Formats: sequence, C-alpha cells, structure tokens
Amino acid sequence: MSNTGFHRARPADLPTPFVEIDELRLERNMGAMQQRADKAGVLLFPHIKTHKSVVLAERQLALGATGITSSKPAEALVFVERGIPSVILAYPIVRAEALDRLLKSVKGRGTRLSTIACNAIHVVALSTAASRHQVEIGVFIKVDVGLGRIGVNPSDPAVISLVSDIHQAEYLRFDGLLSHAGHSYGAKDGEERTAIAQREAQTLLDLAEILKAQGFDVPRISVGATPTCLGAELPAGITDIRPGNYVFLDGTALRLGICTPDDIALSVVATVVSSNDTHFIIDAGSKSLSSDLGAHGTGGKGFGTVLQADHDDTASWLVEKLSEEHGFVRHEENAPPVGSRVRIFPNHACAVMAQFDEVTVRKTDGRPAQIRVDARGCQISG
Amino acid sequence: MSNTGFHRARPADLPTPFVEIDELRLERNMGAMQQRADKAGVLLFPHIKTHKSVVLAERQLALGATGITSSKPAEALVFVERGIPSVILAYPIVRAEALDRLLKSVKGRGTRLSTIACNAIHVVALSTAASRHQVEIGVFIKVDVGLGRIGVNPSDPAVISLVSDIHQAEYLRFDGLLSHAGHSYGAKDGEERTAIAQREAQTLLDLAEILKAQGFDVPRISVGATPTCLGAELPAGITDIRPGNYVFLDGTALRLGICTPDDIALSVVATVVSSNDTHFIIDAGSKSLSSDLGAHGTGGKGFGTVLQADHDDTASWLVEKLSEEHGFVRHEENAPPVGSRVRIFPNHACAVMAQFDEVTVRKTDGRPAQIRVDARGCQISG
Repeated sequence: MSNTGFHRARPADLPTPFVEIDELRLERNMGAMQQRADKAGVLLFPHIKTHKSVVLAERQLALGATGITSSKPAEALVFVERGIPSVILAYPIVRAEALDRLLKSVKGRGTRLSTIACNAIHVVALSTAASRHQVEIGVFIKVDVGLGRIGVNPSDPAVISLVSDIHQAEYLRFDGLLSHAGHSYGAKDGEERTAIAQREAQTLLDLAEILKAQGFDVPRISVGATPTCLGAELPAGITDIRPGNYVFLDGTALRLGICTPDDIALSVVATVVSSNDTHFIIDAGSKSLSSDLGAHGTGGKGFGTVLQADHDDTASWLVEKLSEEHGFVRHEENAPPVGSRVRIFPNHACAVMAQFDEVTVRKTDGRPAQIRVDARGCQISG
Repeated sequence: MSNTGFHRARPADLPTPFVEIDELRLERNMGAMQQRADKAGVLLFPHIKTHKSVVLAERQLALGATGITSSKPAEALVFVERGIPSVILAYPIVRAEALDRLLKSVKGRGTRLSTIACNAIHVVALSTAASRHQVEIGVFIKVDVGLGRIGVNPSDPAVISLVSDIHQAEYLRFDGLLSHAGHSYGAKDGEERTAIAQREAQTLLDLAEILKAQGFDVPRISVGATPTCLGAELPAGITDIRPGNYVFLDGTALRLGICTPDDIALSVVATVVSSNDTHFIIDAGSKSLSSDLGAHGTGGKGFGTVLQADHDDTASWLVEKLSEEHGFVRHEENAPPVGSRVRIFPNHACAVMAQFDEVTVRKTDGRPAQIRVDARGCQISG
C-alpha cells in the first residue's frame, strides 16, 4: 500500500491508544472551509458532532463561522451553556419535554436557536416547548433530497400546511429550508457529487418558490455535508452550509477523493502488543476506532491505514478486523516490532471522537495539549 | 419477522435513547452460568468488559464468582479501586509504566492480580513493573487456540523459555495457561462449538503436560468465551472460565443459537422520530447501538431487531442502516407512528454498553434504577 502523504511527526509520548489531532492540518482545514463559505457568500454553521469540543467550536467561530450545528438537544446544551451564540439543532423533536433543559439555557443565555421539522408532530412539540418557556425557536422545514432519512418529500403538498402551522405558532419563527445530502457519501466521483449538490439546491429553491407563491418569506436555504461542501462547487442560491467532518477528514473522505492523505488531521496512536504469522495486533480496537466503515452505512475496505509512528518507513498496512480492544493488522514479512507504536488513519473521524473523553492536540509548536470531548455521550433526544 | 420471546414489559418513562437491562433475565443469566461453573467444578472469572459496572461485578461475586476478568489496566483499576479481590487482566503489557497506577492500587488493596504473556517483551515489562512496586503478579501464558489474535503458537518451543523466565522473575508467579476461543463466534452449530471447546482444552492440557515434564507446575487452565462456555459442554481438565457476554446476551448469541429471544437481558429503547416510504427513523444510531455486526468481526444481517415498546404487537423489524444518531428501519405498510417508542435488541451488547455513561436497570419489581457504566472509556493499555 502506498503511504505518500501519511507521514506525520513523531507522536506525543503518552499512553496508547490515544487520538492525536494535528493542529496545523486542523487549522488549514477549518480555514479552507471558511474561505469557501466566504467566497460563496454563505454562512458557515459547522456541525460539531464531528469534534464535540467547545474549544474547537470557539475556534471555528473565531475564523468566521456564524454558529454551530448540533445533533441532539443534550449535545446542543453543552455548547449553549458555554456561550456559543447561535445553534442549529438539526434533529426532529417529537416531545416538548425533550427541549425543557435546552430552552431554559437558551432563554438565559439569549442564544439564537433554530431547529427542524418535517411532520406536524414536530411542529406541535416545538410550539408547545417554545410557548412553555416563552422563547423563540426558528424552524427550518427539513427536506429529504435523497438520503431517505429525515425530511418531507419535496413534492408533498403537506409542506405548505407545515409552514403555515409554524407561522401560526406564537413562539416559532419560520427560518426556511434545510437538507442534508448524506447520499453524497455514496457518489462515485466529483461529477456525481456536483450533480447531487446542484440537484439538492435546485430542489430547495424550487420549493422556496412554491412557498413564496403562497405568500411565505423563505429567509434561509441551508445545506450541508462534507462531500458536497468540500468536494463540489457550492451552488448559487443557498445561504448556509453545515459541514462537519471537514475539520479532521478521514479514510472515507480520502476514498471519496475529496482530500489527500496529507489533509487528514486526526489519527489514532496505538502500540503493537503482539504478532503472529498473519497479523500484528494493536491496542486500538472497535472501542477506539469504532466499527464504522464510513458515514451512513457507506464503506470501503478495512478499518484504517496503519504506519509506523516513530520513524519514517515505507511500509503501510490495513486494519483488517477488530475486536473491542484489539486491531488485527495483516502483514507480509514486514510486521513492526512488538512494543513499537503505529499511527492509524481511521475510516470515520466523528465516530472515533465519540469513543474518547479526551483527545490530544499536537499544537503547531509540537507540544501536546489535552482537550475534552465535551459532548461525548449526548445521545438523548426523546 | 417472528418476534416470539422478544416481548418485554413497557419500558421506563425516560428520555430516549436509553439502555434498559432486565434484572430478572440478568439474574437468570448470571445464576445459570454460575451453576454451570459449579457443576463442572471450575472457578468463574466473568469478563466485565461486557457490563463495565462495579455493582454488576459485585453481584457476580455474590453469586459465587471468584474474581473478574478485565481488558485493560485502566479498566481493571476501576474494579480494584472498588474492592474486587481478584482480577485477571487478560491483555498483554509491553511497557512496565502501563501498570504503575494499577499496581499501586493492587498493592494497597491486597488484590490478587493475574495477567498474561506470550512474548518475552511481556514478561520483561511485567517483571520490571512487579519489582518496581514489590507486588506479586500472576502470569498465565496466553495460548492462541485458533482466533489468531494474542497468544503463543502451542507448538512453539519458545513457550518453555517464557515459563522459565516467569519462574526466574522475583515478583512473578506462574499461574498456568489461558486462552480465548473467540473463533467460536464463527462456529455454525453446537457440534462445531463443542469441537472448538474440546480442542481448546486439549491443546492447553497437552501443553501443560509438556511443561510438567520440564518440571513446571501448571496450577490453572483458564478458558473463556460465551459461545463455548454457554453453547457447549465445559471440557474436563479446565480450572477457570471467563465468559462475559452471557450476562446480557444479544443478537449475536441468538444468531449462534446459544440463547432464545426470551433470554436477552439488554435492549435499547428509542423513539420513532420520522418516517418515509421505505424506512422509519429511530433516535438510536451507531452512537447508541454501535456499528458492530457481531464479536471479532463476525456478523449477521442488520443492526438489531425492533419491536413496539409500549404495547404488544405482532410486528417486528430490522435496523437496516445506521447514521451516528439515526437508525433506518425498513418497513412495509406497518410503520409504528412517529412519536411512539420501540425496543431494539442489538447485535453486540458489550459494544452498546461502551457507548453510555449510565444505563437503566428494570428491577424485578418494575422500578427503574440508574447504574453507572463505571469503566466506559478505559481503553488505555500502553
């Protein structure tokens, strides 16, 4: 396996396995996306489910992001409590009670909160919660543009009554249309990604025209997925983007061809703890690397690319199989010695971050710094 | 899909997604394994990587377990600090420093600690650490009986010099032979599992004879994997077993035919948050269910069996695909309503526990109690 571009400086001297984030590459990735957004004249609301870290979100805002996107109320709460001023909660709420804790904090902090709806149940839950706390919530209509997950079918006339319900609710504000083209993780090349991005924008813009014809203002058109935001031109007409993975990138982004090995900012440092005729065994298993093959069930081969961590070497290997605490790495004659350290570039950086309470940032001066994965374990939504 | 045996009482009224452990089934599973061990005259050292909970380990000891088995030094430490008297650390140590924190606690508490070695590096690291802290460590030779992960090849003559090294180290105690027949997760039926279990025991007993002929005492023969301990006869000649998953069981155990649906003690309760023509979407994704298809890379189809949680219904479904916070459940005409709750029986209970800081135990009287997943996130070993 070729390993051009995967070489990194010697990792921090810390117990393994640990996640090492390369600040230089992180900054480069964050800056590049902000520039893309600025150039296209759109607002950036990075999805923080990738890093789950308040200091990294603060850095994204310092570089120009308008706010953040989060997955679940418990996750959003962590960032609201730490003073992030504008949050898109990109998850449908079915029970008003699920927002009680978050809205108390949003009200106290004066946070601008938006969320999504694609079913009358969501609007009722949001309206009930907003009225109870007397706090305004912005609501995007979530539109399914092909992932087949959450969202109205864009040709479903029910969307008009949903928007009308939002308008009629005292504490709800209609923010516009929002989509996630997660199916772009399955696109075979840049041409297909561009087609998905263009079709996504056109679907939302067409729907916006229909709503405008009904007398509704459609202030924002929000899209977001790293493959379409990084690996395709940003289409005209959109107002916000919400990519997340771009900050770290990973084996999936590499497989898609939207980054080079040298762009990947997150890796896992592990120790070779044993070796046999076919595999050497590392102390990072599914509890560190996750079992994810890619995002949304898409996937490649194996669970990560492995290189020697402590000296430059031409060899690289594939993590072939995982137990919870062991990675099986197939080797030919060239297994690294037991006791030596390796660096693994995993398939899915977001899933790796979700396994750790703390990770190490390799600062630009080479010094290691520990940061908390503040919103790890915040799955609750119902 | 048939759902006979999957029905459970209405879950606790708690925000979703959450893990619900059925105490009645948990007790039944714990008791049954202890009885198997007692009947065979072997000691039970349950692997606590499955539940990672001190109160559940204490319950296993109260039922008759001699001690526990753990994966990593950081995980073992949690249980030693809480007073568990005997711990097998079933992971190879390559750096003496990795045991510093644990041995300090072992010494202070008077814990009986055993671990494993299959390479001279492991023996050196253990000997260095034990001497530094002046604390005795028992060492099993880990034997690879077919999983191809950690362990000496049983026909490798190097095993004699390893045992000799252990004997010569001042603070090391040779405990015997230890194996994990994880390849039994790939066995197609009980006959094949029995064959694996018998071959495993025979391999260890043959090696013990060789060592005895060299003048070494081989006090213990330790085996352990739920498929061989639960789904096959315990072979003669072994002294300890170390199964873990048997406490909860899961879709993998069910697929292997070593339990019935009614035996499964762990499930995840989630809410249907959206629905489309092909799938309904639940608020449990890979961050709750894990992406594991099974143990050690073995696997079945999908990511869990789904039933309505709040009323008996004849329908059941399969989790077909996962995003981090969403499960995609394919439906025909019969999708449960948005806002209703479902119960998911996941593929791999151990991997689910590793995602949560706290889980809910449904006590035998129906009352919910929260317990900590005390050793979640304890991956460090190097």
